Amino acid sequence: MTARDDLRHMDHALRLARRGLGNVWPNPAVGCVIVRDGRIVGRGWTQPGGRPHAERMALDQAGPLARGATAYVTLEPCAHHGRTPPCAEGLIEAGISRVVSAMTDPDPRVAGRGHGMLQDAGIGVTQGVRQAEAQELQAGFLSRILTGRPFVTLKLATSFDGRIATASGESRWITGPQARLHVHAMRMAHDAVMVGGNTARVDRPSLNVRGLTTPRQPARVVLSSKPVSDLPPEGPMHGPLWRIDALPQNALVDLARQGITRVFCEGGGMLAASMLQAGLVDQVIGYTAGVVLGGEGRAAIGPMGLVHLADAPRFRLVETRALGGDLFHRWRRITG
Amino acid sequence: MTARDDLRHMDHALRLARRGLGNVWPNPAVGCVIVRDGRIVGRGWTQPGGRPHAERMALDQAGPLARGATAYVTLEPCAHHGRTPPCAEGLIEAGISRVVSAMTDPDPRVAGRGHGMLQDAGIGVTQGVRQAEAQELQAGFLSRILTGRPFVTLKLATSFDGRIATASGESRWITGPQARLHVHAMRMAHDAVMVGGNTARVDRPSLNVRGLTTPRQPARVVLSSKPVSDLPPEGPMHGPLWRIDALPQNALVDLARQGITRVFCEGGGMLAASMLQAGLVDQVIGYTAGVVLGGEGRAAIGPMGLVHLADAPRFRLVETRALGGDLFHRWRRITG
Repeated sequence: MTARDDLRHMDHALRLARRGLGNVWPNPAVGCVIVRDGRIVGRGWTQPGGRPHAERMALDQAGPLARGATAYVTLEPCAHHGRTPPCAEGLIEAGISRVVSAMTDPDPRVAGRGHGMLQDAGIGVTQGVRQAEAQELQAGFLSRILTGRPFVTLKLATSFDGRIATASGESRWITGPQARLHVHAMRMAHDAVMVGGNTARVDRPSLNVRGLTTPRQPARVVLSSKPVSDLPPEGPMHGPLWRIDALPQNALVDLARQGITRVFCEGGGMLAASMLQAGLVDQVIGYTAGVVLGGEGRAAIGPMGLVHLADAPRFRLVETRALGGDLFHRWRRITG
Repeated sequence: MTARDDLRHMDHALRLARRGLGNVWPNPAVGCVIVRDGRIVGRGWTQPGGRPHAERMALDQAGPLARGATAYVTLEPCAHHGRTPPCAEGLIEAGISRVVSAMTDPDPRVAGRGHGMLQDAGIGVTQGVRQAEAQELQAGFLSRILTGRPFVTLKLATSFDGRIATASGESRWITGPQARLHVHAMRMAHDAVMVGGNTARVDRPSLNVRGLTTPRQPARVVLSSKPVSDLPPEGPMHGPLWRIDALPQNALVDLARQGITRVFCEGGGMLAASMLQAGLVDQVIGYTAGVVLGGEGRAAIGPMGLVHLADAPRFRLVETRALGGDLFHRWRRITG
């Protein structure tokens, strides 16, 4: 097995892992590929709701072929007894002879113990293969474990002068159908969708995934001190509805405690401004339409009380491309 | 000579033609390549101020080697006696045996007569090679001839919430050095740079090309009913300064009469809004920085009096890419 093969199989495992994003919380989305004599004998990824784990699924698929095989895992196998036996134990019992992992699990219950258990059992362990990619994939899980709040993506779908509606409130449709479908895919890849109370009352947004098959609808979070009515109840087409009467910072800590790792914030302008101001936005996703609404239009981001340009929150461009007739762009927070 | 060779040489001629953009008005920016036995023997492009023409320059370079050669021209050679003899005549006299041209000259003094003169002299003429690219290059010249006004590019350099300054007026720097240099290249490729009176008085912009070697500084146009002071006088570093007290539509007609084919509008928000409202913006160029200024910031586009989304001016995305740390995007007007 060459280093090149290791990268190829790990890329495969990362692709499998991505399937779990948004539907495996409170667990991390992991991928696993088992390879014997250059042939893939098992593939697994964290299942909706968080179990079975990726390793269990791949081992079950491989059966006796796992003996002497190499397992590629996007995250260090778990070492603690939870509702299922630890995956490190499973890999040992199945007779896996080598494990290639992308990153160490920062969860204090694991944190190197998974790799240690494997090594103690005489299994060769190669660590850190595609580490940066794996950490990007685990941005939500890492944020929850290391900072106590979920990873937050802010969505901005605007005219190219930064407006989300005309003065009269017309907003259907500024962006095109491809951008709108992309928004649904983004909701699907997040554990929870969040809006401010005003937006919830005025726009009565559905905040669910439509047009795509999802194993789990995202939780709907409304930040509001006042009751929110008129939103559909939880059901097959809608995730749980949680109203939180707290500042964004505290609301996010609450959500992390409940197991939420990735939050997709869809505005409105007041909530977006206060999240940005408090430094809580990790990623901004922009859908910019080729339309101009003018200065009376509703701004995507409300007043921020900013005096000096040097104090403005800064982001770096990660990706840009055309999306239907619209412009898609993605930015990550620049941390001080 | 295969069709593939024709495309390759025309692409070369188009690259030469682009050198003239912004510095050859009132003439079109043309490129010419003379090829004999597969070898390039002459290259020409419209010189600063509009003459010599591209064909004259290429013929002079080729000298006696032009006899029996093929000339690639990005625009039909001129057929009228102006301050120089017509280029069609020059090509005939030099003994060119074949002419490949990208497009017909819409100028009523030419309009097919150039091609006709060549054909009458027994020269083989192939027309329409890379026509779309040539027309794009001639957008300003075509606009002036066919609609009586220059081609207008609107620049928007904003935060990603569409702001050009903080509430207190701080705007240095929202975008990075690469985006700012690109703005200078855009000024260089336009005949005139235009701003509103308020911007001229408050920001006292230099409106010239810096950091790049330009054969001609763009004309500076200020749309204002009130006098404008404090802008530097015309000189080696600054083009002529014209204050026009008229509505944008009429000002543009004025400019076209003076020979201006390409206008780069740099705001402010009031002028941008009225240009957009009047349907006078052909192209929008956006430089979006990864910074958020919030709702109190100054909007890039002022009030437009727009009631319905369906009435908003629409543009289609032509190009997007990273430019330093900023996002560059280019849009063209969608005409009804």
